[in-house]
Amino acid sequence: MQDRYIPTAVIRRLPRYYRYLRDLKDSGVERISSGRLSEIMGVTASQIRQDLNHFGGFGQQGYGYNTGYLYNEIGELLGLNEHHGMILIGAGNLGEAVIGYINSRGLNHRFIAAFDIDSRLFGTRIADVPVLPMSELKSFVEENGVDIVALTVPAAAAVETAGLLVDSSIRAVWNFAHVDLPLPDTIIVEDVHLLDSLMRLTYSLHAGDDKDHGKH
Amino acid sequence: MQDRYIPTAVIRRLPRYYRYLRDLKDSGVERISSGRLSEIMGVTASQIRQDLNHFGGFGQQGYGYNTGYLYNEIGELLGLNEHHGMILIGAGNLGEAVIGYINSRGLNHRFIAAFDIDSRLFGTRIADVPVLPMSELKSFVEENGVDIVALTVPAAAAVETAGLLVDSSIRAVWNFAHVDLPLPDTIIVEDVHLLDSLMRLTYSLHAGDDKDHGKH
Repeated sequence: MQDRYIPTAVIRRLPRYYRYLRDLKDSGVERISSGRLSEIMGVTASQIRQDLNHFGGFGQQGYGYNTGYLYNEIGELLGLNEHHGMILIGAGNLGEAVIGYINSRGLNHRFIAAFDIDSRLFGTRIADVPVLPMSELKSFVEENGVDIVALTVPAAAAVETAGLLVDSSIRAVWNFAHVDLPLPDTIIVEDVHLLDSLMRLTYSLHAGDDKDHGKH
Repeated sequence: MQDRYIPTAVIRRLPRYYRYLRDLKDSGVERISSGRLSEIMGVTASQIRQDLNHFGGFGQQGYGYNTGYLYNEIGELLGLNEHHGMILIGAGNLGEAVIGYINSRGLNHRFIAAFDIDSRLFGTRIADVPVLPMSELKSFVEENGVDIVALTVPAAAAVETAGLLVDSSIRAVWNFAHVDLPLPDTIIVEDVHLLDSLMRLTYSLHAGDDKDHGKH
């Protein structure tokens, strides 16, 4: 597994395969051809074969892919078969929604605590996990082997908060704050910039308008 | 404006420029060189010049970019200078968080109503917008000139819900449901697949582990 090289573009597409394979598996489909998968997913069969060939030994002519096996292999590669206790910083509405969204899914990823600077929240729970003071973050993270943190604080507070993570054992930040975090390369950052996404949507909408105008 | 061709890759980077330009403008910085912008944003000055050249007439040697003008031009291109009344379908925690996140920012984008199938919610408000029954969606959308809808229903309900939009005047869907929506090309879809994002993060974390193992 460790020596296998898979291009970044393929890695970025794997979550989508994983999602379709799960649905197929859950619907009792044990095998699927690249042609049928192509129809369902709306990508070419040749791209599917190229992408899934990285997992070797599948997709023989006339047999198709074994959905359960492939689902498991991709899950293994993505690190989804291991348990990940996560924490969240910023126990507001967005934080509550993120915890609820993830914890309701029965995944191996699970939020186990939220942290905040607002002392009125200490001792309460949001989306059924306890809210703890920031001063306990470092020891909590070490004692519970937490390596992923979701950051749902306002942008103005995000840079300072991220700074606190530098000498903790946190190794990955799932960043919802609308700002780029100045973190060292040793900490992985995955941004969910909702406003950027809304801007792209709005651009597409207006670009569509311009095209229509062109037709008149 | 309509005749200007800007490559998709540049468009995808514009929201980030827009964010930095807003911060500069708000801090009273009226001009900035590509070199300084390069330091702040962590991309090469030559990429900045290439990207921003599409807006013409800026960045003369020794003068730099006019932050306010460029901010406004990019906002215009992205369609952010116009008012957009939006609605949301799925008045749960995630829906509430999305409305709160957007409506608290003083943007030209603003949610004006939420829709749900749960009759206990009708007449209540989430994040300060009214929750209305799905049966009123079509007329509400037409009367209020709404063209963007955020979809925060569970994946199992998303496909059916999306179907209801096909003969409404909705033209763009901001999709938070973890499923690909089978919509015609005339409706623009921008996906926010949180689980895919978390999977990529976890992969990077594990890929980092493998690299470390390789060193021993």
